[in-house]
Amino acid sequence: MTEETVIGVNNSGAAHELTPEFIAAVNLALDQNETTEAISLAQSLHYADLADLLENLAHVRRAELVEALRSDFDPNVFAELDDTVRERVIDQLGISHIAEAVAGLDTDDALDVVEELNTDEQQEVLEALPAGERSLIEQGLSYPEDSAGRLMQREVVAVPMHWTVGQAIDYMRDTENLPTDFFDLFLVDPLHNPVGTVPLSRVMRTGRDVELTDVMRKHIKIVPVEMDQEEVAFLFRQRDLISAPVVDGAGRLVGVITVDDIVDVIYEEHEEDIMRLAGVGEEDDLYSAVIDTMKSRFSWLLIHLGAAMIAAYVISFFAGTIEEMVALAVLMPIVATMGGTASVQTLTVAVRAIAMKELTMSNAYRTIGKEVAVGVLNGILFAILIGAVAWAWFGSPALGGVIGLAIVINLIVAGFTGSALPILLQRMGYDPAVASSAFLTSITDVVGFYVFLGLAASLLL
Amino acid sequence: MTEETVIGVNNSGAAHELTPEFIAAVNLALDQNETTEAISLAQSLHYADLADLLENLAHVRRAELVEALRSDFDPNVFAELDDTVRERVIDQLGISHIAEAVAGLDTDDALDVVEELNTDEQQEVLEALPAGERSLIEQGLSYPEDSAGRLMQREVVAVPMHWTVGQAIDYMRDTENLPTDFFDLFLVDPLHNPVGTVPLSRVMRTGRDVELTDVMRKHIKIVPVEMDQEEVAFLFRQRDLISAPVVDGAGRLVGVITVDDIVDVIYEEHEEDIMRLAGVGEEDDLYSAVIDTMKSRFSWLLIHLGAAMIAAYVISFFAGTIEEMVALAVLMPIVATMGGTASVQTLTVAVRAIAMKELTMSNAYRTIGKEVAVGVLNGILFAILIGAVAWAWFGSPALGGVIGLAIVINLIVAGFTGSALPILLQRMGYDPAVASSAFLTSITDVVGFYVFLGLAASLLL
Repeated sequence: MTEETVIGVNNSGAAHELTPEFIAAVNLALDQNETTEAISLAQSLHYADLADLLENLAHVRRAELVEALRSDFDPNVFAELDDTVRERVIDQLGISHIAEAVAGLDTDDALDVVEELNTDEQQEVLEALPAGERSLIEQGLSYPEDSAGRLMQREVVAVPMHWTVGQAIDYMRDTENLPTDFFDLFLVDPLHNPVGTVPLSRVMRTGRDVELTDVMRKHIKIVPVEMDQEEVAFLFRQRDLISAPVVDGAGRLVGVITVDDIVDVIYEEHEEDIMRLAGVGEEDDLYSAVIDTMKSRFSWLLIHLGAAMIAAYVISFFAGTIEEMVALAVLMPIVATMGGTASVQTLTVAVRAIAMKELTMSNAYRTIGKEVAVGVLNGILFAILIGAVAWAWFGSPALGGVIGLAIVINLIVAGFTGSALPILLQRMGYDPAVASSAFLTSITDVVGFYVFLGLAASLLL
Repeated sequence: MTEETVIGVNNSGAAHELTPEFIAAVNLALDQNETTEAISLAQSLHYADLADLLENLAHVRRAELVEALRSDFDPNVFAELDDTVRERVIDQLGISHIAEAVAGLDTDDALDVVEELNTDEQQEVLEALPAGERSLIEQGLSYPEDSAGRLMQREVVAVPMHWTVGQAIDYMRDTENLPTDFFDLFLVDPLHNPVGTVPLSRVMRTGRDVELTDVMRKHIKIVPVEMDQEEVAFLFRQRDLISAPVVDGAGRLVGVITVDDIVDVIYEEHEEDIMRLAGVGEEDDLYSAVIDTMKSRFSWLLIHLGAAMIAAYVISFFAGTIEEMVALAVLMPIVATMGGTASVQTLTVAVRAIAMKELTMSNAYRTIGKEVAVGVLNGILFAILIGAVAWAWFGSPALGGVIGLAIVINLIVAGFTGSALPILLQRMGYDPAVASSAFLTSITDVVGFYVFLGLAASLLL
């Protein structure tokens, strides 16, 4: 929430949309050194669109544009930029420039920018701020990363619980430094503990003489300052909240979290889930340098290599068997692929259900049982299908039987491990998404190769 | 937004939290046929928690509890239930009961429930509604699924643009049937086209005599009724919106979308992405019956089987080579696994970047180029590593060289296809997430086996 979209403050705001043609026009202007044209195009954008434009430009072009905009670079752009790009822009503009910019932001947006800096830089920015704002941001930094304390805005509209609607309206009319936008009044008792909220639409429609306590929402959700942001987001979604009071250890109202920040958290947390499932670092985005991306992928590939080595080792036990019957080498990847696919399917459903709090200890056994049952059923169907193909291809009904049996066993293992492993990780306090494909497909690979080749060795030769 | 949390309407609301112990208590009460106890426990919950409770119970227990609650089943629970569970509860309560319940909901929540019913059931429910509400819901159903029209609430607070702040306040005080909660006033011209918005906090703090046009936000984002909900969500995130006006084809204000509905959309869309990447149907949730889950997984497994068959067919070309050198069968899954892992990593980053509108046609070539470069670098590192292991294991430096070369080629292919395929799909108007692992890992499997075994056949034998 900022002043920028208010008429009069930024008359040129959002006059243009960020279309591919628009980006092309900016690129052209920069290419031909028409700096004035580039500046005027960039400044015709809403700050969120300007952030997107900067993300979209190639490194050199982005640096040129940032340089051109230096003297009146809108600080709100910082809060909207991708982390990697923000770091580059901050490096380019220089730390003293950032200190000035941060002073113009709300505490939550300012904290967003400051927390990304290294310790020396933070110190330099903090020293340049007015004492009041500085101490608020220092306090913010003292809360754990990804906690409610980092998300909240310190500017709250809190009024004594014994006031009437009229008193609250007069207070809001007469107080200068209220937040730019707010949606609820928080009622506090003499200890500054929140006791209820009154949505503005309700204040608006109630007579001046009515007591605030008569129109307040009483059973409100109160967010402790150290609550994890994922929990906070879940609360907002479940209760359709627009804003929620944040309290310190003593239950005193210290800030407010608004839904616009929660929307960002939800995107962030989902990104984390999706990236972890694929084994990609969260810092691995479109804007990272090739070398950083390579590093972030390397460790995951290494884990997969370890898993593949184990599978290769299992296969090597049966080298003699394969030499005698090369059809086994042809067919064995099928068993592994089917098991791997089924386990990733199961894992994905389980991880999502855990995130949505649908899968808990209350229904864990039931869920695992169901996944095993699905494994049995699909296992039988695919055993028949693949067994028939193997029989037809290599003319051996026994080979068809062996691969069918291996498929059934591997799909059951996939159903069991794909559901049990994330539940176990969650129980042990880890993020279930890290169970991810690596571990599971390595299990189904090993089981698949071992069962298929082992059965073949003992039954076919 | 509903009345339920307002004091006086539901005094018992949210008195309890939904803990595992609470669920155990409900289960126990149902087990021992203490229906009154079960009802009182269930009714002590907020409707969102009651929905979660119903989702958490086993089928039989859930049916028992729904039956017990039948006479005063809170209609708000419907909007919070998972689709599969909702369908079952609706079946159990019967359609006439649903019609009554729907009448008590806001238009957007009512539409949520009605759109899940089949045509006959919809007809029955609609006939039981008052004419006004009925026509609003019928209109809602006429908009495409997942469009702004389906999301919006018809109850809007719109005032003529020539009014003053005082006139708007008096209007809000005196009008009975305003929405329960709202956050912005919409100013409309004589044609009912929205021209600006005034946040309530601004109305509250401005003198009565000020013209609304002097304090309005002018550059507002207007949502066309047929806009896709994913687009709408992106707009809300980018602009930190709390509510947005929805207009029909003629630009007339027809409804409002509030951020609480957008939060649900974001969860829904991310779920869709994560499920598609793993090849799981969206209807595949924790509550589906075993047989439905089996079906939803079957088709994807079948596609993977097809891909695995192609890979097996490629291997069969080299059956003779493998017979001569069985080490190839032992090592070949490593080449395939490394390629598959790298392509899923690349795909995930690309799909996410496309969803966030970070990856567009403006930087598509740059992105593909970067992913190929990452493939080259990681390919060289892993070629050295795996080549050394193969040499040491099988005592053949030539075998080490062949597998190293195969790894480099496969990681380059993975980087190229993992980024180019989703971009191409997006360009062609498909969801890039459907590119998913199946197609990509089948490409890297085939390339991996073919290159490794082909090089071995021509260089080693």
